[in-house]
Amino acid sequence: MALNRESFPKSVTIYEVGPRDGLQNESIILKTSDKIELVNLLLKAGLPAVEIGSFVRPDLIPALADSNEVAVGLKPLLKSNRLVALVPNMKGLDRALEAGVREVAVIASATESFARANLNNSVQGSLEIFRPVIEQALLAGLNVRGYISMCYGDPWEGKVAPDKVTQVAERLFEYGISELSLGDTIGVATPGDVISLLDSLESVGIARNKLAVHFHDTYGQALSNTLVSLQEGISIVDASIGGLGGCPFAKSATGNLSTEDLVWQLHGLGIQTGVNFEGLIEISKWLSQVVGLKIKSKTAIALGADKVNS
Amino acid sequence: MALNRESFPKSVTIYEVGPRDGLQNESIILKTSDKIELVNLLLKAGLPAVEIGSFVRPDLIPALADSNEVAVGLKPLLKSNRLVALVPNMKGLDRALEAGVREVAVIASATESFARANLNNSVQGSLEIFRPVIEQALLAGLNVRGYISMCYGDPWEGKVAPDKVTQVAERLFEYGISELSLGDTIGVATPGDVISLLDSLESVGIARNKLAVHFHDTYGQALSNTLVSLQEGISIVDASIGGLGGCPFAKSATGNLSTEDLVWQLHGLGIQTGVNFEGLIEISKWLSQVVGLKIKSKTAIALGADKVNS
Repeated sequence: MALNRESFPKSVTIYEVGPRDGLQNESIILKTSDKIELVNLLLKAGLPAVEIGSFVRPDLIPALADSNEVAVGLKPLLKSNRLVALVPNMKGLDRALEAGVREVAVIASATESFARANLNNSVQGSLEIFRPVIEQALLAGLNVRGYISMCYGDPWEGKVAPDKVTQVAERLFEYGISELSLGDTIGVATPGDVISLLDSLESVGIARNKLAVHFHDTYGQALSNTLVSLQEGISIVDASIGGLGGCPFAKSATGNLSTEDLVWQLHGLGIQTGVNFEGLIEISKWLSQVVGLKIKSKTAIALGADKVNS
Repeated sequence: MALNRESFPKSVTIYEVGPRDGLQNESIILKTSDKIELVNLLLKAGLPAVEIGSFVRPDLIPALADSNEVAVGLKPLLKSNRLVALVPNMKGLDRALEAGVREVAVIASATESFARANLNNSVQGSLEIFRPVIEQALLAGLNVRGYISMCYGDPWEGKVAPDKVTQVAERLFEYGISELSLGDTIGVATPGDVISLLDSLESVGIARNKLAVHFHDTYGQALSNTLVSLQEGISIVDASIGGLGGCPFAKSATGNLSTEDLVWQLHGLGIQTGVNFEGLIEISKWLSQVVGLKIKSKTAIALGADKVNS
């Protein structure tokens, strides 16, 4: 393969968000045992990092109300695998620690409107809540992943300026996160926006190897945006098995970038992922045909994981 | 917008294949008047080139059996707009000329299996049929567009070597085509394959400004493949309104690259297309809500062109 004009990374770390960001926005709520099985299958297929749930107040996100039980069910795996749980505050962190979780994530917002809607706070106020959470997690020996939501556009405020994202990013790294995922929560970015944001983050000295990209496919741009990110030196990509997920604040409920479509592209480009592609498709089939979820990955559907056609 | 590391073309010519390649593979067959209306609407939205039908034997592709009537209905527009019709042979060319068509297209195959299945001939044999058709069309003062199907993969033969495509391309240019569209008929290519093929074509001196790319989205790669093509100097892109279309020989009936998703990306990148995006979405809504077609464009669905949700 003659890739003589572009430079892509030799390998990409896929950070699988299906069991959290994916299942959080699906109409079917999985049984705890199915969630545990899903994480097990993803690890078996070679995914190097899986987000397993969220230690929010159980009534806030019913689909993830059993994240504690999921973590407990995965206990033997928590030490030797990168299994991450979201924590919204100190109470969430305490519960995650008690369950044996070894890496947590916090989700900040780039915009005031989303901070109000999702975090019930201001951008600044929510950062002040995260600061001691991150410090405490570090003291307990955990890694902390940061997310920033609405990095490109926001349903209330429209286009988001890169420097708003960069300001929040600087604070999160200052607090001690080890990796930052840039969320296009409503899926409106196009490749030029991605380059602009990465440039802005570079201008304050944030290294690209600490950044992950996280795209939703609302406007069909997720994989193109990822491709440009790879060309710009990013090598950590968030994706969701089956393209599961969505955003309650977006007009249409289009899901995350699908892990299957991403792996098809990366392997096609000769980029290593450590993922067994056939194993991945088996999981899509199981999710569709046994669990009953609607699979949105075109690759998985092309290979027979469609519930209706199979 | 800081596009400092990649070079994209300033403008892109979108070649709209919806009324031909799109409608050819949909379950609903449009009335002749709706087909004529569709072409009119596409021109009004600023599409610079539209493929309006196919002069094949009417019983071979029932969805396009009325291409002659469509062309006749568009007669006042044929001279001043780029409206193209497929012709499979001399008889088809005669009918197209009689209807007043000013540009025709021929579809060759890169593989023997597809040539047999679709053209009922060998690769060489079908080229020999096209040669006098192209010569005759040129004598009549028409432009001729060439297509090559199965440029990357074939359902019977698997991966297709770039030099197979290049050999057919050389012949078609030798016969006198003015533009060649590289078809990923079953939608299996990834960006590395695209670069390899463009390199192969360049090695025999085929200029990039005579090449168009034509992707199907079976594995979700159509827009990424297009993006890489633009970076490689291509500036003519085939797309289908609503992502209509499919391929009877592919396992799943996923459609063409959608015009709406493409325009969303190009305009996001600051690339001129001459297309009125809002006008395009109005067409998607009409196709979905009035004509009753299932729209596959994520952008159009996000903006309310979904039949079910609207």
